Amino acid sequence: MTTMTIAGAQLGPTQKADSREQVVARMIALLEQAASKGATLVVYPELALTTFFPRWYMPDWNEVDTWFEREMPNGATMPLFERARDLGVAITFGYAELTPDGHHFNTSILTNRKGEIVGKYRKIHLPGHDEYDPNRGFQHLEKRYFEPGDLGFNVWRNEGVIMGMAICNDRRWPETYRCLGLQGVELVTIGYNTPAVNAEMSAEGKEKRLFHSELSLQAGAYQNATFVAGIAKAGMEDGHPLMGGSIIVDPDGFILARAETEDDELITADCDFSKCAFGKSTIFDFARHRRIEHYGRITSQTGVKVEV
Amino acid sequence: MTTMTIAGAQLGPTQKADSREQVVARMIALLEQAASKGATLVVYPELALTTFFPRWYMPDWNEVDTWFEREMPNGATMPLFERARDLGVAITFGYAELTPDGHHFNTSILTNRKGEIVGKYRKIHLPGHDEYDPNRGFQHLEKRYFEPGDLGFNVWRNEGVIMGMAICNDRRWPETYRCLGLQGVELVTIGYNTPAVNAEMSAEGKEKRLFHSELSLQAGAYQNATFVAGIAKAGMEDGHPLMGGSIIVDPDGFILARAETEDDELITADCDFSKCAFGKSTIFDFARHRRIEHYGRITSQTGVKVEV
Repeated sequence: MTTMTIAGAQLGPTQKADSREQVVARMIALLEQAASKGATLVVYPELALTTFFPRWYMPDWNEVDTWFEREMPNGATMPLFERARDLGVAITFGYAELTPDGHHFNTSILTNRKGEIVGKYRKIHLPGHDEYDPNRGFQHLEKRYFEPGDLGFNVWRNEGVIMGMAICNDRRWPETYRCLGLQGVELVTIGYNTPAVNAEMSAEGKEKRLFHSELSLQAGAYQNATFVAGIAKAGMEDGHPLMGGSIIVDPDGFILARAETEDDELITADCDFSKCAFGKSTIFDFARHRRIEHYGRITSQTGVKVEV
Repeated sequence: MTTMTIAGAQLGPTQKADSREQVVARMIALLEQAASKGATLVVYPELALTTFFPRWYMPDWNEVDTWFEREMPNGATMPLFERARDLGVAITFGYAELTPDGHHFNTSILTNRKGEIVGKYRKIHLPGHDEYDPNRGFQHLEKRYFEPGDLGFNVWRNEGVIMGMAICNDRRWPETYRCLGLQGVELVTIGYNTPAVNAEMSAEGKEKRLFHSELSLQAGAYQNATFVAGIAKAGMEDGHPLMGGSIIVDPDGFILARAETEDDELITADCDFSKCAFGKSTIFDFARHRRIEHYGRITSQTGVKVEV
């Protein structure tokens, strides 16, 4: 029976002018807080090192590239990796990745408790758009600045637990959890940066957006009998509000811990991974109950086809 | 813009000794109530015509077959079809289907407002087991008495709305909604009979089971931008409790109407189907956002493969 105290390190806002070093110092403070509570894994948000830059239209790719990391760890993040190693805490966080051959991804990495990177995920479900859109309240240019992830949905056995990663908008797609569930996932870590306002429906309101985030995280957990940690960057970044609402969910879909602020805030949950077994062996025993012969459209057809 | 008042006709318990005619009389009473409220579609539960007989182990298939319908409509149900036609109300309900060539399915049909059957669905995700299980608090022999549905997940344009059907346990599987969503579904009707007690974990409790039902129905609605009606048979059937909790959900995942009792009870919701368009054209614009090249496991692999 594997149990682990998981920490979600919600980050408050990071402004354009803030340096990586400033952010990493905040991440280390949360890491130390987590270690003091006995946590052995800390989950940070998507694009943890910078402001959520896809809200800004940048025609100049030299400027765009200033938001990307060319290696990981690097000078700015090495103190985080070193402190995590010294404390014996595994970490996962997101960052914008620029590969040596010039590809741009919205990436997250997972380390073991020795500070070694054991897993990498590149965001598959990129939301938003790829050209400046004058009809939006603000821009959401993830499809401009990133390529869709090319690594697929993978899991890693880390500290005895089968872990998978996803990023932000991935959490709204049941395909994400199912691809991981089919690999026996026991913990899905999902960092996010979600505007508190819908750029295409400003009347929507933050409460509805929090509900949709929770609904997706909870359903993904229940329907795959896995723990899920959804961890936000939150608060007002250069005048643009991000919602918080970081939660850790158990394999029943129940919320074990929830962030109350929109600032740097640590939440923790004691996760007993043996609790994944009941759902995986009964109502969600995939081998007995799934009927793949009827699921063909899910992989053969990208968009809607109205045939009636 | 298509709007329609949808009624969910939750049914209270039906005992083994109750006749089809008695049940149909109750269904007609709910139909008339629905018509008086302006509803033009009534959604009834799974296996609406009988008690939930899969809880009983029957070694004799002649006895099993007494729970099945050989044609639809038939003598017992014709009054329902006729009254629905006269009132101009479309209906959908579930029943146990025995085909002329001897196949057994857990089936639902959909009619138009003229009382004509326009769609048929056979339950794909059969829960439970196929042999007597002495370790269960009670039996759930759907895998014994039914074959998995052979018709796939389909939609029909009925009274201007793209409708799809699913049955009971199908509602817990995101594949169900996605297969329908990829066909542009605007309303998914799902009848169910769900024991209020988990036969394999009696301590679970009804509240948790209601939560799981709602979570699945709400997530399916939101993630496919469709209305969903989940309608129960409820109450104490020959000493075995079924949970109620019938709900109608909008494309945002919000609950529009909820049954309060565990008896015959009508719930209604005014559904504006133009509300499906926003989600389908923005965050769940499948053509822009889905990445089928990474979903392969969903259709190539039935059960879990732990490879780490």
